Amino acid sequence: MKTYSLNSQVQLFRFGNPVRTDSLSYPEEAMELQPEPFKIPFFNESFEEKSVTLKGRLKKTDKVLGLGESVGSVNKRGRWIESYATDDPIHTPDKSSLYGAHNYLFITGDEHHGFYIDFPGKVIYDIGYHHPDEIEIKIEGLDFDLYHFKHDSLKNTIKLFRMLQGEGYVPPKWAFGNQQSRWSYETADIVKEVADTMRKKGLPCDAIYLDIDYMEDYKNFTVDETRFPDFGTFVDEMKNDGFRLIPIIDAGVKVEKNYQVYEEGVNNHYFCKNEKNEPFLAAVWPGWVHFPDFQIPEVRKWFGHKYEVLTDFGIEGFWNDMNEPAIFYTEEKMKEFIDKVKSLEGKNLNLQEYFELNRCYEALAGDEKDYKNMFQKIDGQMISHHQIHNLYGYNMTRAAAEGLRELAPNKRHLLFSRSSYTGMGRYAGLWTGDNHSWWEHIPLMLKMMPALNMGGFMYIGADIGGFGGDTNAALLIRWSQASLLTPLYRNHSAKYTRSQEPYAFDEKTTDTMRKVLELRYSLIPYIYSEYMKATLNQDLYFKLLSFEYEDDHSKEIEDQLLVGESIMIAPVYEENAKGRYVWVPEEMLLWKTVINHQDEFQVVSKGHHYMHLEMEETSLFVRKNKMIILAEPAQNVDSMDFTALTVLAFVEDTATYYYYDDDGESMNYKTNKANGMMVKITLIKDQYEIDVSQIGESKVHRLNLMIANVKGELVEYSYDVKNQQLI
Amino acid sequence: MKTYSLNSQVQLFRFGNPVRTDSLSYPEEAMELQPEPFKIPFFNESFEEKSVTLKGRLKKTDKVLGLGESVGSVNKRGRWIESYATDDPIHTPDKSSLYGAHNYLFITGDEHHGFYIDFPGKVIYDIGYHHPDEIEIKIEGLDFDLYHFKHDSLKNTIKLFRMLQGEGYVPPKWAFGNQQSRWSYETADIVKEVADTMRKKGLPCDAIYLDIDYMEDYKNFTVDETRFPDFGTFVDEMKNDGFRLIPIIDAGVKVEKNYQVYEEGVNNHYFCKNEKNEPFLAAVWPGWVHFPDFQIPEVRKWFGHKYEVLTDFGIEGFWNDMNEPAIFYTEEKMKEFIDKVKSLEGKNLNLQEYFELNRCYEALAGDEKDYKNMFQKIDGQMISHHQIHNLYGYNMTRAAAEGLRELAPNKRHLLFSRSSYTGMGRYAGLWTGDNHSWWEHIPLMLKMMPALNMGGFMYIGADIGGFGGDTNAALLIRWSQASLLTPLYRNHSAKYTRSQEPYAFDEKTTDTMRKVLELRYSLIPYIYSEYMKATLNQDLYFKLLSFEYEDDHSKEIEDQLLVGESIMIAPVYEENAKGRYVWVPEEMLLWKTVINHQDEFQVVSKGHHYMHLEMEETSLFVRKNKMIILAEPAQNVDSMDFTALTVLAFVEDTATYYYYDDDGESMNYKTNKANGMMVKITLIKDQYEIDVSQIGESKVHRLNLMIANVKGELVEYSYDVKNQQLI
Repeated sequence: MKTYSLNSQVQLFRFGNPVRTDSLSYPEEAMELQPEPFKIPFFNESFEEKSVTLKGRLKKTDKVLGLGESVGSVNKRGRWIESYATDDPIHTPDKSSLYGAHNYLFITGDEHHGFYIDFPGKVIYDIGYHHPDEIEIKIEGLDFDLYHFKHDSLKNTIKLFRMLQGEGYVPPKWAFGNQQSRWSYETADIVKEVADTMRKKGLPCDAIYLDIDYMEDYKNFTVDETRFPDFGTFVDEMKNDGFRLIPIIDAGVKVEKNYQVYEEGVNNHYFCKNEKNEPFLAAVWPGWVHFPDFQIPEVRKWFGHKYEVLTDFGIEGFWNDMNEPAIFYTEEKMKEFIDKVKSLEGKNLNLQEYFELNRCYEALAGDEKDYKNMFQKIDGQMISHHQIHNLYGYNMTRAAAEGLRELAPNKRHLLFSRSSYTGMGRYAGLWTGDNHSWWEHIPLMLKMMPALNMGGFMYIGADIGGFGGDTNAALLIRWSQASLLTPLYRNHSAKYTRSQEPYAFDEKTTDTMRKVLELRYSLIPYIYSEYMKATLNQDLYFKLLSFEYEDDHSKEIEDQLLVGESIMIAPVYEENAKGRYVWVPEEMLLWKTVINHQDEFQVVSKGHHYMHLEMEETSLFVRKNKMIILAEPAQNVDSMDFTALTVLAFVEDTATYYYYDDDGESMNYKTNKANGMMVKITLIKDQYEIDVSQIGESKVHRLNLMIANVKGELVEYSYDVKNQQLI
Repeated sequence: MKTYSLNSQVQLFRFGNPVRTDSLSYPEEAMELQPEPFKIPFFNESFEEKSVTLKGRLKKTDKVLGLGESVGSVNKRGRWIESYATDDPIHTPDKSSLYGAHNYLFITGDEHHGFYIDFPGKVIYDIGYHHPDEIEIKIEGLDFDLYHFKHDSLKNTIKLFRMLQGEGYVPPKWAFGNQQSRWSYETADIVKEVADTMRKKGLPCDAIYLDIDYMEDYKNFTVDETRFPDFGTFVDEMKNDGFRLIPIIDAGVKVEKNYQVYEEGVNNHYFCKNEKNEPFLAAVWPGWVHFPDFQIPEVRKWFGHKYEVLTDFGIEGFWNDMNEPAIFYTEEKMKEFIDKVKSLEGKNLNLQEYFELNRCYEALAGDEKDYKNMFQKIDGQMISHHQIHNLYGYNMTRAAAEGLRELAPNKRHLLFSRSSYTGMGRYAGLWTGDNHSWWEHIPLMLKMMPALNMGGFMYIGADIGGFGGDTNAALLIRWSQASLLTPLYRNHSAKYTRSQEPYAFDEKTTDTMRKVLELRYSLIPYIYSEYMKATLNQDLYFKLLSFEYEDDHSKEIEDQLLVGESIMIAPVYEENAKGRYVWVPEEMLLWKTVINHQDEFQVVSKGHHYMHLEMEETSLFVRKNKMIILAEPAQNVDSMDFTALTVLAFVEDTATYYYYDDDGESMNYKTNKANGMMVKITLIKDQYEIDVSQIGESKVHRLNLMIANVKGELVEYSYDVKNQQLI
């Protein structure tokens, strides 16, 4: 083991000779080799033949945060987690692995320690699961980088980690609008009907998704001409109606003679191999597929450029799926299964045999053994996929991001992925995969959001309404309200489940959904501003209350979040509930919208409150001496008017807000082509002093200011931004 | 349809010619045929070829309660539920059927309506699932009884229904002690070790369970002599150590030449048949089995008497399992599956074929088609099991109860079942089946308890710590605390899961568990008294707050319960939480126990509260002008001293309590051999007047009284019951 210091707060412990993951992006010069090795803080390490174990003791008050996409509370104490990307569509509370592998954790109590284990194989975390006071991390390999971060606060400790990753992914502004999906809108006519209904019902929407059925036999980079005739024209028509189409891309390439992607892959040895050095064969949606070896830079380039087939049609966004990679079965497993089944014919099974049959069936899909028998090339050497399993989706998505960048250097694309590894947040967003229409999956979403942010995943969201199973009107509404500020806002559901578009229920539900979606669109200036600032500054967009408030109670709350610098959310997520308890850590302004009523504003004192909230009501809290920026909702983001905005402020003495904006579509933000404004509101002897200064070539001409003071008195002003005066 | 009036509050709508279920037990003379048929209240009925549908409209404020064992909130609005007994061990929030079929529901709002559909086939409930304001019930048959109940309150409406069932099941008193189970304690040595460890660690316990492995090849009414040599002696030894052994009995009888139960069943035509009139063949734990046709009174008698094999060994309690009946596969299904699999050999499966394979596999177990192909005899006529499916577990358990009654007419046995139908509550208890070690399954338990009570299921409980999956120390503790007052208190877990006995974790956890169990045992006088009063008077043991408090907030609360007449519980069930919010509907006395500390008593005002509650703390609330009766804990119920008890009272002015007790083991309670006492405490000018009158031959000699007033002042007295004076 060698130890390096990156700066006074970051140390690197290098075990053996790690595979290069590129998950962090700091310059190698920053690494300063230490002549005398440091001891790893907090943990004691022990070496086994093929693994390393880190053991530490937790104090009663220590919390363990991080680990991104995983079930359970934000504080992971009591949990067993395995970092091993898994396509598991049943996110019950006992699942140890989901789609992503996020090896960062923060131990916070009297001190704040951050750790990041840069290792693409399996890592197992026992966080007080076996013994309530012990944490044990087993890295299934001898070659990895262990980073340690230490700062005076949890927030700053996380930032140290985020800084090493570099700047996060920035989607186009329209990607913050409402998006409608389903497995599948199978034909152009169906897509058109969804779009028309959204408009007819006045439900704002920016994008409609194409799941696997748009393809010809599930072949990547093809479009089925029967179901989507003249695709380019259709894409244009839809765009004219204000909808982008977002096709899915899967990891596996269908094995089919004369299918160009397949032929090129085989001829150029672009696919992962089996032990005989033949392309590895697995079955997914198209039947047999090969998996591109995204570990090879040339393959990433090749695959990334394939997206051009669709961008040439006018497509501007993609979602990468099945990239754990998901496997339904392999030849070997299917043979084993068929042999097992045949051997049972005519037998009276005993319990052992019956269990064995079940085991064999369950092992068909996504078994570790298959990943061990698949091989990828690193620097010319073949290595078992198992050892770098967690990089697969990350490198597929990196391939897409880099390809799209080359195809259109100054254009942003919408891109997000199901599987991920730390660092993918620089290339794309992610969605939390195949959740269910369960009430319990609303709080699961709320708990994953801050944990993902800690790892630099910023453009994130869950399938609103739930993917698997059948939702109902109440669940869709409460979920849509709870997602009010998630960057990725998408309603998506599975084949064979009930329709769950916002208009799929009764008129009252449609009315409620319209109100929720309009509120979402109103908030887009704020959402975009906060997203961009957090992403460009390696800050958090979703924060636990404890990141800003030091009282004991704020330390325990996991189902309320601070979103951006001005808002606290406390969504209702219980079936048939008419409200919920809220901890208000300082005086705040509660804003409720209700259908067919005027909005309500109410100053809420510091303390515990029961917030009554009917189905038709959506709420958010504005923090003290903070403000939010709003626009008029419209049918989609492109048609919104960002020149006349509204400021809603809750002012005790002084509130300042930096409103970030830019063109929303180019990469010019990299060279600081931001525009926007600084708004300062000062309360001096019952009078508000308003100071607005423009930044860059601001689009804002006029501001409507709604300012509440701590007595709950609300005043409104109109402000001419160009002339810097009230009107 | 004929309509009958049972009394002014109960009407019966008889559709066609229903199968007699015996689920209710009122005399036929009570039925008064109405010359002019009534209209069914609330619903409109419509007839299809093979089914009847009832449709009604829900007002916004209407709640729909009942339906016993089902997932989701207590208020079932928004749910789709199918009454069809199902062995499904994954109780995710989307499941429409569990083990029991409980066709009672109460619609409560401005008015209170109760309905009970006495139909043993499938009934489907759409309770605002398709349309938020509509309720639709489809009865899959033309012959059934529909009862309507109407009273001035929900509580009284439920009582009308309960009264028609008659008196509930009464277990022996020791069955309220702590019980320890696992699939499986496989040998006598292992059982002994569990028992010894419980005693060594000072963990009170009354019973240890024997899961399927105690049997010889899973054959009912056999004991494996290798694993349990000299079983009778072992049962005695264990009893001397203070433990009863509780063996499992399964529904299916192993097909095995010379196995007596099998031979008798075949020879006497006691088994369910297939369409060729041969015994129906299905595979469960033992491989091939036949299912006794419990619809035939002679079969019930035969099977019920078989329990004698085990009572002869000294066994005093049983749990009936797999009686939906669970089917792993049938010959036909396995053949279909094997053929399907063989047909796939060497093929590149397309999506359709892949789905079909999955479907075929999933259809192996417990498919409706199998139940349709099984036949039972009613009054000499063969009828498809599907039509009376929901009676199977009920009649198996009735067979056991009636058999045990005949074997020992004046002795109570512990008996509970997995599958159930309304009315089974007169014969036995039930447990909620194969739950999981998920935090979410604590509130699921809390929500099922009052819903089961409404249907007359009184001796109930969930597997504490969770059956499937791995628990951890925190989950076990919180679950044990939340179950503090459930009549059936059993820790049970599945094969291949982590050990979860109360001593299976660290010492701190054992200490906490000891404190929780001791509190449980302290409460046994109260639990028993309240259980008996509720059961004998057709009242509720578990009640929603709204049954006693009329404020708006009490109407919404589902995760706090009134248990018996004096206690409110508000358990902590969130992972890593250090407390919870509690609605206190009137001034109450909060009692907290903490390990290694004196108990804390605190008067809590009416209103919303955040209750801090560390893992080491257990809490309950004593209602105003109510009291609870406590005893000293001991290693088991038999060794408890019920002669010296403690009264904990919270008195504003006058509190009265009827403490019920009896011999705890005989059936003499039927002839009113109750004993106990009436305790009355009156506060007059800062002085408590204490009045204790004995009932029957009371065992109580001495009372320790702890009385808190509304200022939180606690005073203690000793009271000599015989001499009726303070000492």
